[in-house]
Amino acid sequence: MSADVMSRSIIGTSVRRNDLLGKVTGDAKYVADMQMPGLLHGKTLRSNVAHARIKRIDTRRALALPGVKAVLTHLNVPRVLHAGSPHPRSASVTCDQYILDDKVRYWGESVAVVAATTEEIAEEALGLIEVEYEALPAVFTVEDALRPGAPLIHDRGPGGNLVLEPVVYTRGDVAKGFAEADLILEGEYEGGRPTPAYMEPNVCACQWDGNGNLTVWISTQTAFMVRGIMAEVLGLPLHKVRVLVDHMGGGFGAKQDLFQTEFLCALLARETCRPVRMEFSREETFLGGRSRHPAKVWLKQGFKKDGTLTARQARVVFNSGAYGSHGPGVTIVGTSALTSLYRCENIHLEGRCVYTNSPIAGAYRGYGVVQTYYALDIQMDEAAVALGIDPAELKLKNAVREGDIAPSNHPLIGHGLEDCVRRGQQEVGWAALRGRERTTTGALRRGWGIGCEMHGSSAYPGIKEQGNAIVKMNEDGTVVLLTGTAGLGTGAHTALAQIVAEELGVPFENVSVVHGDTDVVPWDIGAFASHTTFMGGRAAQMAATEVKKQLLVRAAGQLEVSADALQVRDGAISVVGTDRSITVRDAVCAKKGIPAAQFVGSATYYPTKSYSFAAHFVEVEVDTETGQIEVKQVVPVHEIGKVIHPVGAAGQIEGGIQQGIGHTLYEDYQIDLRTGRSLNANFVDYKMPLSMDMPPIHTVILETAPDPGGPFGAKGVGEDPIVAIGPAIANAIFDAIGVRFRHYPIKPEQVLQGLAAQQTSRSPA
Amino acid sequence: MSADVMSRSIIGTSVRRNDLLGKVTGDAKYVADMQMPGLLHGKTLRSNVAHARIKRIDTRRALALPGVKAVLTHLNVPRVLHAGSPHPRSASVTCDQYILDDKVRYWGESVAVVAATTEEIAEEALGLIEVEYEALPAVFTVEDALRPGAPLIHDRGPGGNLVLEPVVYTRGDVAKGFAEADLILEGEYEGGRPTPAYMEPNVCACQWDGNGNLTVWISTQTAFMVRGIMAEVLGLPLHKVRVLVDHMGGGFGAKQDLFQTEFLCALLARETCRPVRMEFSREETFLGGRSRHPAKVWLKQGFKKDGTLTARQARVVFNSGAYGSHGPGVTIVGTSALTSLYRCENIHLEGRCVYTNSPIAGAYRGYGVVQTYYALDIQMDEAAVALGIDPAELKLKNAVREGDIAPSNHPLIGHGLEDCVRRGQQEVGWAALRGRERTTTGALRRGWGIGCEMHGSSAYPGIKEQGNAIVKMNEDGTVVLLTGTAGLGTGAHTALAQIVAEELGVPFENVSVVHGDTDVVPWDIGAFASHTTFMGGRAAQMAATEVKKQLLVRAAGQLEVSADALQVRDGAISVVGTDRSITVRDAVCAKKGIPAAQFVGSATYYPTKSYSFAAHFVEVEVDTETGQIEVKQVVPVHEIGKVIHPVGAAGQIEGGIQQGIGHTLYEDYQIDLRTGRSLNANFVDYKMPLSMDMPPIHTVILETAPDPGGPFGAKGVGEDPIVAIGPAIANAIFDAIGVRFRHYPIKPEQVLQGLAAQQTSRSPA
Repeated sequence: MSADVMSRSIIGTSVRRNDLLGKVTGDAKYVADMQMPGLLHGKTLRSNVAHARIKRIDTRRALALPGVKAVLTHLNVPRVLHAGSPHPRSASVTCDQYILDDKVRYWGESVAVVAATTEEIAEEALGLIEVEYEALPAVFTVEDALRPGAPLIHDRGPGGNLVLEPVVYTRGDVAKGFAEADLILEGEYEGGRPTPAYMEPNVCACQWDGNGNLTVWISTQTAFMVRGIMAEVLGLPLHKVRVLVDHMGGGFGAKQDLFQTEFLCALLARETCRPVRMEFSREETFLGGRSRHPAKVWLKQGFKKDGTLTARQARVVFNSGAYGSHGPGVTIVGTSALTSLYRCENIHLEGRCVYTNSPIAGAYRGYGVVQTYYALDIQMDEAAVALGIDPAELKLKNAVREGDIAPSNHPLIGHGLEDCVRRGQQEVGWAALRGRERTTTGALRRGWGIGCEMHGSSAYPGIKEQGNAIVKMNEDGTVVLLTGTAGLGTGAHTALAQIVAEELGVPFENVSVVHGDTDVVPWDIGAFASHTTFMGGRAAQMAATEVKKQLLVRAAGQLEVSADALQVRDGAISVVGTDRSITVRDAVCAKKGIPAAQFVGSATYYPTKSYSFAAHFVEVEVDTETGQIEVKQVVPVHEIGKVIHPVGAAGQIEGGIQQGIGHTLYEDYQIDLRTGRSLNANFVDYKMPLSMDMPPIHTVILETAPDPGGPFGAKGVGEDPIVAIGPAIANAIFDAIGVRFRHYPIKPEQVLQGLAAQQTSRSPA
Repeated sequence: MSADVMSRSIIGTSVRRNDLLGKVTGDAKYVADMQMPGLLHGKTLRSNVAHARIKRIDTRRALALPGVKAVLTHLNVPRVLHAGSPHPRSASVTCDQYILDDKVRYWGESVAVVAATTEEIAEEALGLIEVEYEALPAVFTVEDALRPGAPLIHDRGPGGNLVLEPVVYTRGDVAKGFAEADLILEGEYEGGRPTPAYMEPNVCACQWDGNGNLTVWISTQTAFMVRGIMAEVLGLPLHKVRVLVDHMGGGFGAKQDLFQTEFLCALLARETCRPVRMEFSREETFLGGRSRHPAKVWLKQGFKKDGTLTARQARVVFNSGAYGSHGPGVTIVGTSALTSLYRCENIHLEGRCVYTNSPIAGAYRGYGVVQTYYALDIQMDEAAVALGIDPAELKLKNAVREGDIAPSNHPLIGHGLEDCVRRGQQEVGWAALRGRERTTTGALRRGWGIGCEMHGSSAYPGIKEQGNAIVKMNEDGTVVLLTGTAGLGTGAHTALAQIVAEELGVPFENVSVVHGDTDVVPWDIGAFASHTTFMGGRAAQMAATEVKKQLLVRAAGQLEVSADALQVRDGAISVVGTDRSITVRDAVCAKKGIPAAQFVGSATYYPTKSYSFAAHFVEVEVDTETGQIEVKQVVPVHEIGKVIHPVGAAGQIEGGIQQGIGHTLYEDYQIDLRTGRSLNANFVDYKMPLSMDMPPIHTVILETAPDPGGPFGAKGVGEDPIVAIGPAIANAIFDAIGVRFRHYPIKPEQVLQGLAAQQTSRSPA
């Protein structure tokens, strides 16, 4: 271990999170907690049809209700087309949404909004709005939407109900690859509609000041993108829109979007000259929120007898719902992910994204890759069975290695995936497990499965990203980091403060973080793509380096040595190899209260992409009488470069596994396929695993492939854990009961059906 | 006029102030307007004795009053010695104040504070606090305080009741100078106790969060200094104290201090775990605020027959009141000012500052110079009369010139003073006025007088100052300036935005200013010493230059030329001498919504000092029957380098003249010289000139001596106008009625007494 590494004291330590006390004491304020003088409450009337034109809308009775201050419909809001998702703003195909339209495209779409003095009055007023619809034929499945003559949901895009032109990735020659194969497997894999189900419902509050400046308080992952779209849609220059985000109760990708609400909230506030807050009910987080894209993945692969992959072909179709949102990005990232993970020279992939009259799908942790790797990693398991090879060994044989070209077109660093699988094998005693005698307890069957994944930190090359930071040192040596990164609740700002403290050689407690104010902090693209610590953290480190340079130059003058001879640690600047030192405070402050100079550093970091890896080893127990599946234990092994905050990283992993167990076994936001009506938009009918449902998780974090681009070598960990858990569970179920499931969620009734079918096929004809 | 000068479009234009609409509509929020959930109101019990020990203080009845949440006295607050004034924090002699002490040193000093749910309950609770004092002998005048055996007000400082060791300035040989003189004049001049009487009473609100961070909302000129002292006294690191200032209703120097209230407010908030606001009543702005230092200036000068000054000797004594506050600074600046204005080779000056049991004097526009130049400029007028020389010519003969050494030990730029006097002579037709026939209308007598001054922008060399700024460009080319400068209501942030807009070639409206948040903006020493536009403005310009450089490098790539070939104006970057150009927006934004790079500039400016000059020509009318003095017109001529905002500069000048008329003719905060009791702590008994009392003011602004250190050559104008008006009025009164007044305020009864004495002396014995 080098001296440099040895001297690190803050990086790699699970310091107390800087948002902890506020959250524990309830002192941390969320947008819903804000008390503002004169605040009005906005509520949304949502359509009870899936596809229709609004023939007539009458708001007079609502407006007459005492306490109602304004009602907006498509008749009195600006008709501006915009991208509901700020993310791929250059992809005009997703510029498909109006603030309010005279057409509704899914059951639950916003039709009108009311601002009133209380939530109750606003709610009552919604009931007084009369809407007459002219029904249009609706389609809910991608098959129906792609059928010739299907009703068109939008009159834009590449044609039909396609959100974008199909994406195609080709490598080598698949026909040749399949011709060389000893074994060809082919199957259709299907993903349901889980939702992120964040604790804090979507909320925003808007206020205009006397100078025509708009302030927006909002729970968002992408404050600057919100600013940009709000300014564009409302016709304001950027410096007249201030977006403020403090604490957030989760986002998981979905809080990148704008949900119509924000524009309407701003317009209600302008109309009434009062602050207005709009907060989603839990039901509305389903109706007006974003789910993961339901997907169908047709996947075909060829293998040599020894397990070598010879060809891979796939057709991926994502159901975008009524609007495009992140559809293009998800299609690109999800489909192109199939170029990697397991090496293959002959590849042909097609990805499609399709409008339907279903709830809007958007960005959600895993971003298309959950769906495609679910297919890929289950099919690898199928191949292992068919070839009679240990699935771990099959995956190791084909695992991407150092130097392989990633979907981002960059050579990978380190043998991350291999390291994860091998370490997992050790941890669970894989060899012994493979050879074990299966013990069964009554109807209970146990099995083990493996899921693998790799995931990039940053949205490069799809988006040319940049991380930015300003670091300033106070005159007592304490430090302020100004960052545009968002804190979704993951502890990102703790990690960034650690990085700055480490770089500047000051105690972690001496660094405070200013964030969530677009007027103040440097630009940031938002928190997504697992890039906050990687990209924002590196920018913070670079800005801190800048301040350190200034500090050492100053101290060099005071200590009468060259700045090169100095080091800073624990708040003291010392001459290396001597006992001569001064405190950081004395270097900063010339005279009591007056800094000797300004110690301010500003930095921009343009990342490419680094990849993190994981292998999840999962044990399940299936009750063959009830069909119940219980995950008994998970051993997730993650390679994420240098770990900044071990407990925080482990928390991300455990949380991702919990969500992954959810979408694999329980969660599916369902609609009536005749009417499009939402069936389970609440936490009673939409089942999620609770803490008591969680198995023991024995997390192992490897640091074998640090990325020189990340701060101190760190890479992202945000999305990885949700990807590998799904196929690991499906593979473990197969290991337990011999029934292969190629979809999620896998429900008890399907287990029973599967067992019954297995029984039938095994019985003599 | 150079091309560079010609191309300026924003500098020198009276753009609409960026705080205008908010202030006109009432939308601008001051600390007193803030509504905070759970807010408690703090009130202060003030002593009704001038000098005493507190023998007993009983708060039990107050605490028992329903609604009272906390009561603090010297018995339950930390005993920390601090400087009430943050300004000369290194001058330990003024570290003379406790948060609350067991001794009171003037009538009206804080003795206890109460926090309650309403202001009324807090007020009622004050009446329930029992205090038993042990009286100590008190002194109210500097003579009494300096008398041997006088009661000691503090047990610190250099001894006796001196606030600091006397300051001495010597040049040449005064004895020799007086020996060479044909005329020696000697007199004692005296200044009263005017107060700044800002519209917005002192106010602060404090709140602690769950992480132990303190937020302070306060009307202050020196947010970072407040942060520093609050942190020190409360034992917090700087990054745990956030000081917020938005709009201010004036400060005039006095809002540099801490008024005990701030610490007490923070302690009440900590004690009650609730936000607490403390707002001074109008009476308290007198009792607990800061006045100008009452002063006595003994001045002796020698002249040759032709008017040449041969020697100047002075003893200046400032009455600091019960605490030191800005006493040292005022003594140094006020006394050393007598080294300049009128050239003299032989000088000996002594300055003293003395504790008394009087209200606390502090910083107030003019900062000691009002008092000493009042003496100097009246004595120059006396000399002119005695020598039979036109006073304008006598002043011109001795006026400081380019290259003369200023009190800051820097050579002066330009013949600023001479320019002002000569221009004033032209404006008023001085030669004709001198030779005119005096017309009298009944008892009314008219006269003209001249007052001169020079005043430095920045506190250099007393304080090693620095201006700081961060400029960032949004992705649509709009701009944010982050500055620590304070906006007292003078339009400083408009001037700074103009400077940034000019430098970046974008419209003024495209620049917004973030200020008043110590967590966010770069460090600033505060708004005083007429340095905001000069120093803060220059830093803003430098930061903008930095951004411009980045922008031109980017545009050079796009336009495929060298950055040197580019200019930016009106939001467009063009190749000089061609019609090729791109918009700033296109240079900034690579892709819709994503900036091509970060355009952030940070700059620090270490100023020395620049001097502005003024000559005020004033006409007064004296009613010899009533003694009433009416200022009929003022022709202020100011040399302030490049003017950024003409209307703003003129506003400063007019406001200064109004305050100067006030202190010269009306304003005097008085105490009972037996008990120390305040006599006129309200706007009924403390008279100020109202708008209807104001004469026509024909302001002339010269730009003859721009300072290369200032932004575009600008210098300060904040303090200048209040200095010259006083002696101009006194000299005009002499011109009108032949009675010489050597003090302020000059009251009607004194005019009548003076006329009576004149009559007596003229009557044959």
